[in-house]
Amino acid sequence: MYKIEFALSGDVRVAIDANSGENLLELARKANVAIDAPCSGNGSCGKCRVRLVQGQVDSASSRHISEEEYADGWRLACCSTVSGDAVIEVPDIASAYRSRMKVADLDSPEEIAIFEGLRTQMLAAGIDFSSDLTFLPLTLSAPTLDDTMPDNERLLRAVEEATGCPYEKIILPYAVLQDLSLVLRESSWNVKCVISRDGDRIQIRDVLPADSDAPIAGFALDLGTTSLAGLLVDLKSGKILAKASGGNGQIRYGADVINRIIESEKPGGRKRLQDAVVQESILPLFTSMLHSAGIEARSVYRMVLAGNTTMNHLLLGLHSDPVRMEPFIPSFFHAGYLYTRDIGITMNPLAELIVAPNIGSYVGGDITAGTFASMIWNKPEMSLFIDLGTNGELVFGNSEFLMSCACSAGPAFEGGDISCGMRATDGAIEACTIDKETMEPALTVVGGGAPVGICGSGIIDIIAELFRCGIINGKGKLIREGRRVRRDEHGMGSFILSFREDTGGVKDVAINEVDIDNFIRAKGAIFSATTTMLTSLGFDPSVIERVYVAGGIGSGINMRNAVTIGMFPDIPLEYFHYIGNSSQTGAFAMLLSSEAREKVEELGRSMTYLELSNEPGYMDAFVAACFLPHTDAALFPSVDI
Amino acid sequence: MYKIEFALSGDVRVAIDANSGENLLELARKANVAIDAPCSGNGSCGKCRVRLVQGQVDSASSRHISEEEYADGWRLACCSTVSGDAVIEVPDIASAYRSRMKVADLDSPEEIAIFEGLRTQMLAAGIDFSSDLTFLPLTLSAPTLDDTMPDNERLLRAVEEATGCPYEKIILPYAVLQDLSLVLRESSWNVKCVISRDGDRIQIRDVLPADSDAPIAGFALDLGTTSLAGLLVDLKSGKILAKASGGNGQIRYGADVINRIIESEKPGGRKRLQDAVVQESILPLFTSMLHSAGIEARSVYRMVLAGNTTMNHLLLGLHSDPVRMEPFIPSFFHAGYLYTRDIGITMNPLAELIVAPNIGSYVGGDITAGTFASMIWNKPEMSLFIDLGTNGELVFGNSEFLMSCACSAGPAFEGGDISCGMRATDGAIEACTIDKETMEPALTVVGGGAPVGICGSGIIDIIAELFRCGIINGKGKLIREGRRVRRDEHGMGSFILSFREDTGGVKDVAINEVDIDNFIRAKGAIFSATTTMLTSLGFDPSVIERVYVAGGIGSGINMRNAVTIGMFPDIPLEYFHYIGNSSQTGAFAMLLSSEAREKVEELGRSMTYLELSNEPGYMDAFVAACFLPHTDAALFPSVDI
Repeated sequence: MYKIEFALSGDVRVAIDANSGENLLELARKANVAIDAPCSGNGSCGKCRVRLVQGQVDSASSRHISEEEYADGWRLACCSTVSGDAVIEVPDIASAYRSRMKVADLDSPEEIAIFEGLRTQMLAAGIDFSSDLTFLPLTLSAPTLDDTMPDNERLLRAVEEATGCPYEKIILPYAVLQDLSLVLRESSWNVKCVISRDGDRIQIRDVLPADSDAPIAGFALDLGTTSLAGLLVDLKSGKILAKASGGNGQIRYGADVINRIIESEKPGGRKRLQDAVVQESILPLFTSMLHSAGIEARSVYRMVLAGNTTMNHLLLGLHSDPVRMEPFIPSFFHAGYLYTRDIGITMNPLAELIVAPNIGSYVGGDITAGTFASMIWNKPEMSLFIDLGTNGELVFGNSEFLMSCACSAGPAFEGGDISCGMRATDGAIEACTIDKETMEPALTVVGGGAPVGICGSGIIDIIAELFRCGIINGKGKLIREGRRVRRDEHGMGSFILSFREDTGGVKDVAINEVDIDNFIRAKGAIFSATTTMLTSLGFDPSVIERVYVAGGIGSGINMRNAVTIGMFPDIPLEYFHYIGNSSQTGAFAMLLSSEAREKVEELGRSMTYLELSNEPGYMDAFVAACFLPHTDAALFPSVDI
Repeated sequence: MYKIEFALSGDVRVAIDANSGENLLELARKANVAIDAPCSGNGSCGKCRVRLVQGQVDSASSRHISEEEYADGWRLACCSTVSGDAVIEVPDIASAYRSRMKVADLDSPEEIAIFEGLRTQMLAAGIDFSSDLTFLPLTLSAPTLDDTMPDNERLLRAVEEATGCPYEKIILPYAVLQDLSLVLRESSWNVKCVISRDGDRIQIRDVLPADSDAPIAGFALDLGTTSLAGLLVDLKSGKILAKASGGNGQIRYGADVINRIIESEKPGGRKRLQDAVVQESILPLFTSMLHSAGIEARSVYRMVLAGNTTMNHLLLGLHSDPVRMEPFIPSFFHAGYLYTRDIGITMNPLAELIVAPNIGSYVGGDITAGTFASMIWNKPEMSLFIDLGTNGELVFGNSEFLMSCACSAGPAFEGGDISCGMRATDGAIEACTIDKETMEPALTVVGGGAPVGICGSGIIDIIAELFRCGIINGKGKLIREGRRVRRDEHGMGSFILSFREDTGGVKDVAINEVDIDNFIRAKGAIFSATTTMLTSLGFDPSVIERVYVAGGIGSGINMRNAVTIGMFPDIPLEYFHYIGNSSQTGAFAMLLSSEAREKVEELGRSMTYLELSNEPGYMDAFVAACFLPHTDAALFPSVDI
């Protein structure tokens, strides 16, 4: 029996006893130490880098660790086994998957403008933004020996008098009764109730002292496979009280939904996956938002969740295997009567959890909420809505009809499956141009500091520029040589975007042929999904009048470059609009407006779903699209090669 | 700092560090060791006996501990302080206040006959005993690639089809959704739902495999200040699945409601008092009942609670000080929307908690439920209903009107405030006659073994017999001498009912003048409450046509003797009926029948409440009644002295 100590950021040390031969990644999971492992531990992604700082482990060599790095102690946790006592440093990625990570560009002026613009559009479309949760101020008569009505009845009578709602139709739940006696007396019988109406009934949600300045707040959460983004909102004013984002802690059980479902079916798995997202991801994010807004958890009366079908199921702790197994049946598309306390999210004890409806196993609430936010349901123009998340989902149509589909684009747009990939946080290369002559790149880095990795929009730019400069060919292979081109012993080429010596980082930031190949498959999936869906309707891309691109890829996305690499159809650039995190915007609207909630429910019921794998031409279309820009260059007349 | 170790039954040892001078009873509370302390630690009741088996403590001498017992290590915990390391043996009373104690005579054929008789009467009165919780068997079509309806919708559609209730009016809560996917598949889509109707809505409470033999069960609890009594019932057949009783663990915070309220207002007190009754008393009782019935907690879908106002409040964890402080305002009389999980009682996650309504701060749900069970609301005869609990509550009236009042009788009827008092469990003297000549008693002992103490009915008999034999006078003082009469150094007399030598017990079983005095005050409270209430209505006891006596005092109560000592008015003996634990019977009826629940609610709203302390003649009437049988002997013509 050996002792393995994991050294985390902030001088936190987690020790666990281990047997010789135990896998280090498994051990970390057992010790509840979060290590990023998108490939779920098969050695392919190279993300589970840890540093041996004392003692010994047995590690297989990996293309993800250079000899120099190896000498410096770097190992892949998934390829290392215990062979003695050891101290293992776990990079700060662990805490990144809690609350500290902020998707920087979502706070940019551009993002805010997108957000405000969508809100204005929704108002223009006649969506009422006033909340159904309101304050009801009440002054009660104090009891006396001649007026010994109990506290609850005194309150109910006052609500009856103030609202006209008959006594027996007013609901006063235990959570309100619990401290009622204290609140009434401490406030000298001057209170304000938080109430809502449910048909002909009134529900009392809370009773506060009349002079309380606590708001009626709500929490909108976009729960992605990779990241989460939350908004804390004052439901009376619509004002955003706090905005934050972070990683989904479930990532250590796999980058994609399939691996997580498989993990969740192991003994204790449902609880483990739920804890990873609730306890490790949502609660720290929510708590930090409360802190920054300066409000109490019990002032948050409602939560809206927009997430894909699997994320919904895992969050709710539901049996999810039927989602991934033919005939692909989720527990629910639409679910009501959910409360945040059911899943251990502590806010007001009566806070409802409203889940944006799913449409199918692979088109979830993030898409119904996002479709609502895209406003394509309210426009006569033929519009395409594309959400670039860990999967790619597309909706096409207008105010007359809507069709949706999903494709396995993989996590490349969020920096996954890319050796130096990362999300659009500080240090990420988010844009790039390359000089065709010198092959020297000019990089734009989030936060302005030294580059650490590459985010989605950066990868699009880099591949488009490498292709434009003739450094890579249509298959993504490096075809020019130079000081920035390097090849390993197997002949695999890399293009070095920034040298370690120049930045003082732990490694060079580069893109290699495997990365490019992964990305080409991702963009090919998006393009072929687009054309296949249009074909199924008897259309081709020329009918498209608007394209709304959403997702964490960021406002930095260069639409010209995205067309150049053949990710989007070659239609006029002015048709393209980046609309930010539409899932989050949709959740925000649902939080504030019961009309928005109804509309999203209606979209969920009316939108059709196209299962691409059942479409005859899809695989051929996908293979043809796995080329820069496309095997059929005629589809991209504007791309000058 | 010293180490005090409490040795409990079953070789359990609880150690705690203590400072010199710390009170042993307080220390035990801190260590969460249950010691019986009905007087809440003022040295008067003598119940907190512990045995010093090693080390030392400082103890004040007490009339409750003989010199012999002292030498043997016996001490009163409340009168002992830490002065060194010590090992303290805590008698098994601790576990008695969990689940192991059974009120034996409630299982007697007489009790069962009472129970069945009341049920028959209720049926005759037209109360419908069919439950609103029913099974709905359903066979669903299995999903296919052509029928991909999600699980919840599939179920809702089937319920809609089977019941005619429209889809949107069917409530499927999270607790059902949670395992729905598994249950549907494991049962091959053949299930039975547990449903209930709420107005025009149907609530799905559970989904079970069609072949499950789990019942729809309910739990009725009579929650007394001293004891609790539970029934586990099959709601479909009305059959009693298990029956058990135990002690209320809150007793270590005081025998009466006032001391417990005071304790509950200390920091953490609400939680502490709630835990003492929920975690230590109800859950062990409930669990043992489930075990004996062979059913799962999740098969219990409803709980009915009948308890006094303070017990209700402490169980629900409510702020209770206003209950005891003028103007005596409870948080509620009637409360809805309660669920057992709100207070940590784990049964079916959707199990409601139905609380029999209170009428005032000192007349609670035990009395509304009990009044229902007494059936006096359905009779033309002028009837008196007396519940002898830790407090005494009385209801007088008939089918036209009902008036209630409460008096502080104290715990004497349950064996409290009596040096050898105990509840009616094995070893309790429950009946007694004394030979006037020889002064030799003939004892009837519960369980038939050696006497250990005296329960309520035994005390009535003993005092009546001592009085009849001229051994005590009207003031309760011993006026004859003999081998069974003993006096201590202060001159206080005792009458020895059984000698230690004869039984092999730890002490003689005796009744002393303080005990008799305590009991005379208790019976005086009952009698004066009766006459004061009748006087307030312009009546005297001659109008009474029926007396229904309820409470844990047991079916052994000798009505003749109760009249002899002046506890009940001197009216024909055939008017008196012992109706057992009417609070429990009432809770049972409420569990099974929504009509019974409505009737109890109605009784709660219509019954008037007389505050005795506001009645001018009450104190004089009480003082006059504190004599055997009464200072005005003319009121008891049948008593031959």
